[in-house]
Order: sequence, then structure tokens, then C-alpha cells
Amino acid sequence: MAIYFEEAKSVEAVNARLACSDPRFQQLMEALVRHLHAFVKETEPTMDEWFDAIQFLTWAGQICDEKRQEWILLSDVLGVSMLVDAINNRRPGRATENTVLGPFHVSNAPRRSMGDNICLDGKGEPCFVSGRVTDESGQPLAGVTLDVWQTNGDGFYDVQQPDAQPQFNMRGLFETGADGAYSFWTTLPLPYSIPDDGPVGLLLRKSGRHPMRPAHIHFIAEKAGYERLVTHIFVRGGAYLESDAVFGVKEELIGDFVREGESWRCHFDLCLKPKHG
Amino acid sequence: MAIYFEEAKSVEAVNARLACSDPRFQQLMEALVRHLHAFVKETEPTMDEWFDAIQFLTWAGQICDEKRQEWILLSDVLGVSMLVDAINNRRPGRATENTVLGPFHVSNAPRRSMGDNICLDGKGEPCFVSGRVTDESGQPLAGVTLDVWQTNGDGFYDVQQPDAQPQFNMRGLFETGADGAYSFWTTLPLPYSIPDDGPVGLLLRKSGRHPMRPAHIHFIAEKAGYERLVTHIFVRGGAYLESDAVFGVKEELIGDFVREGESWRCHFDLCLKPKHG
Repeated sequence: MAIYFEEAKSVEAVNARLACSDPRFQQLMEALVRHLHAFVKETEPTMDEWFDAIQFLTWAGQICDEKRQEWILLSDVLGVSMLVDAINNRRPGRATENTVLGPFHVSNAPRRSMGDNICLDGKGEPCFVSGRVTDESGQPLAGVTLDVWQTNGDGFYDVQQPDAQPQFNMRGLFETGADGAYSFWTTLPLPYSIPDDGPVGLLLRKSGRHPMRPAHIHFIAEKAGYERLVTHIFVRGGAYLESDAVFGVKEELIGDFVREGESWRCHFDLCLKPKHG
Repeated sequence: MAIYFEEAKSVEAVNARLACSDPRFQQLMEALVRHLHAFVKETEPTMDEWFDAIQFLTWAGQICDEKRQEWILLSDVLGVSMLVDAINNRRPGRATENTVLGPFHVSNAPRRSMGDNICLDGKGEPCFVSGRVTDESGQPLAGVTLDVWQTNGDGFYDVQQPDAQPQFNMRGLFETGADGAYSFWTTLPLPYSIPDDGPVGLLLRKSGRHPMRPAHIHFIAEKAGYERLVTHIFVRGGAYLESDAVFGVKEELIGDFVREGESWRCHFDLCLKPKHG
């Protein structure tokens, strides 16, 4: 090949330089350069469009801090987070499907007892959520850690409102007993907007898309020997189910939330897949 | 198609949402999603690899400031800058080829007279650079603004060392007269490293690549009615010509730098292409 860069051989010019000691990194870089150059060759961006992209990408990093992760949001709204999640969690059997983790999980939520209320600010409509965690044969699973979180009655996670919400509001860790059952009080989840005052919001507006997510409760279910389940329960009949800004909805993750007097009830079973099973 | 996201129909799921008012933006977004998902589907990144990428991309924005533009560097080392430049500046005729602008151009360099010295710090080996700016028929072009910049004798641009170099060291704006000739004193350019203490440096190390650029002098030549020429003169026989970290070298941009006594000389003609010519 030619010694120097040529438009027609741009991929070869770059990839001929790669000498990664890690063969997986070499594979990722070769594919990145190939797909990136294919995108540029197809779209033929002007110099101004290229510089707009540089500024957009720079902004996406600069708006990040301990509480804000714009790059996860960008991955989410482009469907990349759901795609990577799908690739890593193919569950053709009975096991509950994964969906996106999202940027608002915290790893140190307090341990709670079954039946506890995770709502610490008294906002929203009370809702009792219960179900059973089983394996694919329907046997109850004991010792499953359930990590639960959601927005409060105003539609924000505690970490988005550190001054207005009690710490760990709407969060809790539960552990199943021999019956595999779980239950807790929370509030009826509401649709909310992902942060849209940054580059992701600009991209959504320019794309004619809204920033809303349908109402949901986040779950992580973990037990040694089983695949980690990262999922949501969505509210059947709620707004935005078919246009979730981050593409997180799956049919089987939609639960029935039923009004009973002053409160709501949702029963939703979770099913874990054995590792390498 | 399905209402909700599926791995096999991920591109369709995302692009079905696009309703951009700007058709060009729609085209760019559709292609971006298609190529990005193709990359993910081919490489099947793990969740850890995805998160490493998120952190890398975040870092690339966070290290940027008024003096540091890591995203341009990243575009440079992936060959994207040269590819976009090539697409926008196809010059099959006699006109001088473009190469990358780089992140160190400043727009307000001082005007100087032909024969002036742009070296203000006395470092490096003196070098006299001269040539003629013509059109493709060889006719000299008057009224061409030449914007010239390079590193100093220590291998840094003035903006990288605001405390150690005089402002506008190694920079100047020249305007050609009726003979199209230009000339100035500078110093022999030296190879230098692009900034490699950030994510781009990490990427280069993991790729088994060095961060060096071969010695060069930057030029922008502008005249109304002609395509803007953004280019370098490289030093024939210099190190790294065949492994420029940003892929900027083209055979015809390599000039002869000849020692004469205590100094060096380089004669290099520039040829401009009429707009839409």
C-alpha cells in the first residue's frame, strides 16, 4: 500500500499502524476505524459539520460531574446502551429480560426488611409492590439481593435533588427468604424527563424527539450462580411506553398497577437464569 | 416492525423515532445510528468494555480547555481529520494539497513584512523560507494572505507555553505582492509530540503507536475567489515522515531544507485552485 494517507485507502493507512499488545483491543480499534471512516465516507461532512461534532462531543464530557453522566445518556438515546445490554443478556427462555441500568443507580443503598417503605419524603401515591423470585423451573430462590430505586413523587431521583430529598429516598436493598418472596411500599412511579439541558437534550430537539421516559421502578436482582438481572417494571397503560427516550421498554417488563382505595398494588415475579445455563 | 426495541432490529427501532426538521441532520443521524450499531454488533462489547468507553469519552471532554482540544487530537489520530479534509479538498490538478489544520492555529497573528523573522525567542537554527504563490497556470497571485505558524526550538507552540514563550512566537501573517513571492526567517522545524498525557496518549500507547509528528511548518493561504489552502511543508529526510501520529504527510508537501553555513534554506511554491474551478 501507499506510504502516506490517501482518501481511498484511509482505513488501511490508519489500521496499518496498529500494534496493540492486547488482541481484543486491536480488534476493537480496527473495527472502530473501519466503521467510523465508513460513516464519514457515506455522509461526507463539511469542515463546519466536523467542527460542530467536535464541539458537541467536547460539551458532552464537560457537562459530566459526579451526579451527571451525559455520555451514558447519549449512549442511551442512540439505542447503544440497550444494544450492548441485549448482546450481553440474551435470555431466550423464561428468565426475566434485562433493560438499561441508567445513570442514577447508587451502589450503597440501605438494607431494608420486606414490607418496608422506601418513600422517605411522603410525596406521591402509595404503592405496594410484591412478587416472587424464582429460577426457570419456578423454584423460589432464597438469598437474592434486590436493589430497588425509582424517582419520587416529583419525578426526580434523590441524587438529582440532594438538597430537596432525604438521602436514599426511594432506594433500598432487600434479601429474599426461603419463599423467594419480596414486597415493599413505594409510590406509584411517574413518567419523567431525562436531563435535557445539555448536548443530549439538543440532539433530541434537533431530532424531533421528546426526552421522556415512561413510569418505571428499577430492579437489580443478584444471587451467586445466576446472571445479574438489571431491569425495570413499567406501568401498563402509562404514557411514553412506545416512545421511551432510551428504548428501554420490553413487553414482558410491563406490569399491572391496580388501584385499591387510596393506594396502588403491583404483583410482579422475577425469574433468574443460571450462569452459563 | 415491532413496537419495542429488539437486538435484531435495533437500527430500525432508533431511526423510526427520527423526525428532524433539517433533512441533512436526519441524514447524518440515520447514518450515525446505522454505523454505530454495526460497530457494536460486530464487536459485541462487554458491559465493562462499554463502561471503559464511556469513561474514555468523558475524559476526552473534561481535559479540554481554551488551550487544549483533545477531541481534535482524537479525530486526528484516528485519521478522521485527514479524511474529512481530503473529502472537502479534492485537488486532482496542480494545486497544492491540503493537510490537517491541527489544534494550535490562532486567528489573530501579527501582520509582518516579507523577510521578517517570526522567531522571537532566539531558539533553534535559523531558516529562510521562500517561494511563490501562483494559480494553476503558473501566474503569480498578488494579495494572498499567508498565515504561518510552527513550534519553537524546544518543540512547542507558543500557546502551549504561555509563560515561557513570547506571545505570537513563531507566527505571522504575510501578504504577497505582484510577484506572488513570499519569504520569512524562522527556525528549522523539529519533530514534536502531540499532547500525550490524556486519553489520546493512552489510546496511542495501547495501540503500540508513538505520539510524534514529523517536522513541519504550517501554512494557510487565502485569496478571494480561490479555495482556502490549509497545509504544511514537511522536512525531507526527517524522522517520523512515514509514521506521523496524525497521518498528515503527503509526498508533494515534503520540501528540501538545505544547510547554508549557519542557517538553512527552503524554497517551496504554493499553487491555489480557483473556487468551483
